[in-house]
Amino acid sequence: MRTIEPGKSLTYQFVAKYSGAWLYHCSTMPMALHIANGMYGAVIIDPPDLPAVAHEFVVVQSELYLGPQNGTADEAKIAAEKPDAILFNGYVNQYDHAPIRVRVGQRVRVWVVDAGPQRATAFHVVGAQFDTEFKEGAYLLKAGNAEHGASQVLDLAPGQGGFVEFVLPQAGHYPFTDHAMVDGARGARGIFQAF
Amino acid sequence: MRTIEPGKSLTYQFVAKYSGAWLYHCSTMPMALHIANGMYGAVIIDPPDLPAVAHEFVVVQSELYLGPQNGTADEAKIAAEKPDAILFNGYVNQYDHAPIRVRVGQRVRVWVVDAGPQRATAFHVVGAQFDTEFKEGAYLLKAGNAEHGASQVLDLAPGQGGFVEFVLPQAGHYPFTDHAMVDGARGARGIFQAF
Amino acid sequence: MRTIEPGKSLTYQFVAKYSGAWLYHCSTMPMALHIANGMYGAVIIDPPDLPAVAHEFVVVQSELYLGPQNGTADEAKIAAEKPDAILFNGYVNQYDHAPIRVRVGQRVRVWVVDAGPQRATAFHVVGAQFDTEFKEGAYLLKAGNAEHGASQVLDLAPGQGGFVEFVLPQAGHYPFTDHAMVDGARGARGIFQAF
Repeated sequence: MRTIEPGKSLTYQFVAKYSGAWLYHCSTMPMALHIANGMYGAVIIDPPDLPAVAHEFVVVQSELYLGPQNGTADEAKIAAEKPDAILFNGYVNQYDHAPIRVRVGQRVRVWVVDAGPQRATAFHVVGAQFDTEFKEGAYLLKAGNAEHGASQVLDLAPGQGGFVEFVLPQAGHYPFTDHAMVDGARGARGIFQAF
Repeated sequence: MRTIEPGKSLTYQFVAKYSGAWLYHCSTMPMALHIANGMYGAVIIDPPDLPAVAHEFVVVQSELYLGPQNGTADEAKIAAEKPDAILFNGYVNQYDHAPIRVRVGQRVRVWVVDAGPQRATAFHVVGAQFDTEFKEGAYLLKAGNAEHGASQVLDLAPGQGGFVEFVLPQAGHYPFTDHAMVDGARGARGIFQAF
Repeated sequence: MRTIEPGKSLTYQFVAKYSGAWLYHCSTMPMALHIANGMYGAVIIDPPDLPAVAHEFVVVQSELYLGPQNGTADEAKIAAEKPDAILFNGYVNQYDHAPIRVRVGQRVRVWVVDAGPQRATAFHVVGAQFDTEFKEGAYLLKAGNAEHGASQVLDLAPGQGGFVEFVLPQAGHYPFTDHAMVDGARGARGIFQAF
């Protein structure tokens, strides 16, 4: 890895040896500032034999620390851990304004990656149970498990990723949110509309 | 789900398809405020064939943001993430004042649910090792595992639940706490008294 | 457990019944203050048949709340959750100044314990994938798992411990950090130098 000048490009080539939901981000210092400016993304490597599902999404959660207009993120707010907003895929409440439509009775897989730079997430879909859950390269739950167990929240530290699967049983609105409710209220919210 | 007027009631009926320790809470907005006012509880669905134990408890952890006398929780404190107290089953230090009595050498199961609204928990019993641990519908540890492994802390994000099991080897006081020590000092503390 | 006077000693003897990475700490109240003053350490109990590796390290993460010169930690900063620094093995950035040298292509095992007193950690090695991960007495991942899965971050709540394993593929510097980037910037940083 190395730092490059503005306007220049650098190509990484790699062989994906391991499955998982991987965060990539700018490694120029200070990293927290660069991530807070949106310099991040997700790489999804399916585990072998991952079944196809009717709907598959990727949600990347991150934090916004607003600086001056046309400027960069506010380093003092970052250092003070005072985010102005929490984002799903770069925007506040975007899937509240435009709900994600999925079919009743069809399996939904949501990959989640926590880009941080600082805060954990507790990904939750109101009204759903996750019968399948995969975190950091391993299954925590598989549908049909002996305990008849399901999960209500996937917890991810900054830098972690995974996926959950669920089936929405009837038509309606199923909000999804960071179950750390203050962060949900800061913008980490959306809606699955089952039809 | 829908919002109802004060004094009205609404009955939910459901078939419990999945085992786990589930948080229920008021879904009227703003949810963080309603949870902070105590509008939450736990539903425990045993996994099939869960063995009976000598002692079984449920501990729900939550946060208190004190508003004016006879008023509701303080929304500014919630937004600032400045809790006045952290509670086990609705009170500060209640099991310090009235320790929970359990038998020496008998198996104890403690279900733990983190109601938040915002903070994680790190449930710990001083002097005990958890040889069995179940989180979000799956076993993390079972007694007699090949690694002879045990856990000292069950970590739960807000909205998560699970249980731990342990046996207290001799008579005495075994404090339990959120191992995030500042939150433990804020009231998430209690004592198991083995006799 | 009991409190002793300055200058006195107290010996604990115990049989290690369970494997894992255990935190020990002063239990004199207030515990958060004592841990913040450095009164903690780690006890590592290998699981049976743990393979030998070329390099094995223990990293204990903790928080510093600076009080007056020659004084103790600042209780107000602890209560306000405002750490001045985050430490690996008691110092800010010590393994940045003196990188840890490991052999290219050789297996590295890093035990990690989060002493807190308050904050979680998200242990990450830039450029490495953890093919093996053990947390709180159980394997989350083993090399050669069916999902070809690997982890990028080991998440630990305060009081938790575990280990990760990885192999560095070529010579160079591989920073390791708490992926909660603000805490990384506060001093929870170091470098593995592969040669």
